[in-house]
Amino acid sequence: MTGEVRLIPLRGIPELDEGDDLGAMLVEAAARAGGLDAGDVLVVAQKAVSKVEGRIVHLSDVEPSARARELAGDEDARRMEVILRESRDLVRTRPPLVIAETSHGFVCASAGVDASNATGPDTVVLLPRDPDHSARRLRARIHELTGVDVGVIVSDSFGRAFRRGTTDVALGVSGLAPLRDLRGQRDSAGYELHSTEIAVADELAGAAELVMGKTEGVPAVVVRGVAVAGEGSGADLLMPRERDLFR
Amino acid sequence: MTGEVRLIPLRGIPELDEGDDLGAMLVEAAARAGGLDAGDVLVVAQKAVSKVEGRIVHLSDVEPSARARELAGDEDARRMEVILRESRDLVRTRPPLVIAETSHGFVCASAGVDASNATGPDTVVLLPRDPDHSARRLRARIHELTGVDVGVIVSDSFGRAFRRGTTDVALGVSGLAPLRDLRGQRDSAGYELHSTEIAVADELAGAAELVMGKTEGVPAVVVRGVAVAGEGSGADLLMPRERDLFR
Repeated sequence: MTGEVRLIPLRGIPELDEGDDLGAMLVEAAARAGGLDAGDVLVVAQKAVSKVEGRIVHLSDVEPSARARELAGDEDARRMEVILRESRDLVRTRPPLVIAETSHGFVCASAGVDASNATGPDTVVLLPRDPDHSARRLRARIHELTGVDVGVIVSDSFGRAFRRGTTDVALGVSGLAPLRDLRGQRDSAGYELHSTEIAVADELAGAAELVMGKTEGVPAVVVRGVAVAGEGSGADLLMPRERDLFR
Repeated sequence: MTGEVRLIPLRGIPELDEGDDLGAMLVEAAARAGGLDAGDVLVVAQKAVSKVEGRIVHLSDVEPSARARELAGDEDARRMEVILRESRDLVRTRPPLVIAETSHGFVCASAGVDASNATGPDTVVLLPRDPDHSARRLRARIHELTGVDVGVIVSDSFGRAFRRGTTDVALGVSGLAPLRDLRGQRDSAGYELHSTEIAVADELAGAAELVMGKTEGVPAVVVRGVAVAGEGSGADLLMPRERDLFR
């Protein structure tokens, strides 16, 4: 039986710079919030991860291509150039809006390139190069420092087709299976559940966003009480192209 | 400052039938879990709402059309006929899969018509006729019985474009603004946040799913500690066709 779930914000994490030991900072913040338990899931905002990984581009270093100028419309063509470099495909374009497939396979606005919460007026933040690797590394560092085995999710805010607003989803995952497969299970009426695969990691990321807030300086949240198990990666959440009815 | 958030499952709600006083059952279950507080958000599974509203179809009463037979492939054409009746547009079809726009404007698999957790071997459950109305009615009933002002979300599991697995989203909303608009706010680096509208109601629904489980008989969850405010409806979450880059 699943009982109550708690979403615990981690506060007091300072502004982050490249090379900072984010794992240690998370452990310290968690200690102030009562510590970590085995089975906790730590949801960490992508931007915090990207900053310590140095995934920042200074726009003054960027020379936009003709294609970037065309797609940017009246907006900064240098930012569009960065978006194009981060993309392996453009799924939809309506200047200056671009829905891109990133080099990782994520489909999202602006290939995840973001100017908010950046480190200066002419910088943008890129997604981590390998969010699963980022999650694994944070998890290993937390285990090294505390001996506690937690799950880690690196999250970001994505828009959706057909629905307004963003919800946070899981880019990188370590220490839990991101999909809960109910196929073969029976519901309370005795029915076999068809095609029911729940994107638990995305729901965990969205739940964490509820306490993160974008403007309050809470880059990480502990989710306690969700029975997660197994292993997997954020890449498991990507719909294979050939199965995707929306391509 | 947003503090800790709690997700509290409501247990012990019996199998539901048409005409049952779901509001009273939720109040009783919440009382067993410690009661409701002002500002709580009650997330209620669509299927519970649909059952008490009698949104059940017996397939033996359904005569499938030629179109339904064609789209159903090897599956039950009577179920496909029900799906077509619930749809105002078909967004994608790959027999027997249908992504439909429902009469409400939701874009989802099978127009939300579902056989799991149904009331018998040859029945399917439809979405509520007006999920916002369902949410408003539950909220009013809860206020009538307890004097407590809660928010109510009627939730369901939807698939997404580009990503595997379902996440729960808000179909009907009462007592809270489903979108949090950050435009004009500044982040911790002093930037104005562009185009940042967070689908809080969908994140609340997804968070609740983490404790609902599909097979455990938890049709409702209390979310406590999220600062929700304002008013709005589930229809606010629908992307207007002309703004939708995915149509």
